[in-house]
Amino acid sequence: MLTYYTATTLDGFLADEHDSLDWLFRQEHDESGPFGMEAFMAGIGAIVMGSTTYEWVLAHEDGPWPYAIPSWVMTSRDLAARDGGDLRFASGDVRPVFEAMTAAAGGKDLWLVGGGDLAGQFAEAGLLDEVVVSVAPVTLGAGRPLLPRRLDLELVESAVNGAFVSSRYRVTGPLREDRS
Amino acid sequence: MLTYYTATTLDGFLADEHDSLDWLFRQEHDESGPFGMEAFMAGIGAIVMGSTTYEWVLAHEDGPWPYAIPSWVMTSRDLAARDGGDLRFASGDVRPVFEAMTAAAGGKDLWLVGGGDLAGQFAEAGLLDEVVVSVAPVTLGAGRPLLPRRLDLELVESAVNGAFVSSRYRVTGPLREDRS
Repeated sequence: MLTYYTATTLDGFLADEHDSLDWLFRQEHDESGPFGMEAFMAGIGAIVMGSTTYEWVLAHEDGPWPYAIPSWVMTSRDLAARDGGDLRFASGDVRPVFEAMTAAAGGKDLWLVGGGDLAGQFAEAGLLDEVVVSVAPVTLGAGRPLLPRRLDLELVESAVNGAFVSSRYRVTGPLREDRS
Repeated sequence: MLTYYTATTLDGFLADEHDSLDWLFRQEHDESGPFGMEAFMAGIGAIVMGSTTYEWVLAHEDGPWPYAIPSWVMTSRDLAARDGGDLRFASGDVRPVFEAMTAAAGGKDLWLVGGGDLAGQFAEAGLLDEVVVSVAPVTLGAGRPLLPRRLDLELVESAVNGAFVSSRYRVTGPLREDRS
């Protein structure tokens, strides 16, 4: 199962135009509480992210690659690998990446870290099962969009964790277009 | 107290570029359940909306003006009044409108119906107390933005009502800018 697990502002931005996440990291929450990172990561066997997310991690994390599981970076550019991780670079169609991730995950689930357009590509390919969002009590008005596609979801569960409202959605497919 | 009470998509749009709300009206919910319209409207003594919202109501509601309380429309254009309502048109600064609404509301609260930019104008003037959003399980990727400003909010309460996750936020002010 592939889950897009992310934080977002109330108005649907992953980050502002400058990719700052300061508004996010100052929000009170419990990593071991509902929808917290600890329990989520315990079930994950491989991750995938776009190049902007990758470069954000490189810029903000010193030391070795912070994830101990196979990690794919989707990029059309030639990016340097951070030492200490099982990093694999890919470009183009997301389907072979999904297959390789599934093979590498040892029966565990897959995490799509971001960004929004990559999540949209997996959704369009019918490969995105879930969206789990933790909504921070902030509006930015502009920035990196959460999921720039027309999609129908189905609410599975929701809970408050500190300042966040976190919800799990099943991705049901393209938005039903019954425009009147 | 002025409350911006609205539905939105998970990615922060009030409507798509064609102002269609078909994605909204097919979502299951209980008007008398948590954050439902019935209990909310019982506490409201005056409403205000922008011209796009007003024209949407005119296009989608036959018969007389559907709100039985004093209703302000903020517009720089010359718009026709729908019969059967206490409709008042205004433009420019939102402060005198807020004062007139307060005087007309008979001690009850005020509802900002939409859209997002008008909510932003009231927030900038320090007059927006609350944002109550019901998030529909839909992404649109583009459209009319929920609240195109940089604001800090404070989560007060959250509940599920059918397909919606509804949350009440107190508006605490402009976004704290501690960018690193």
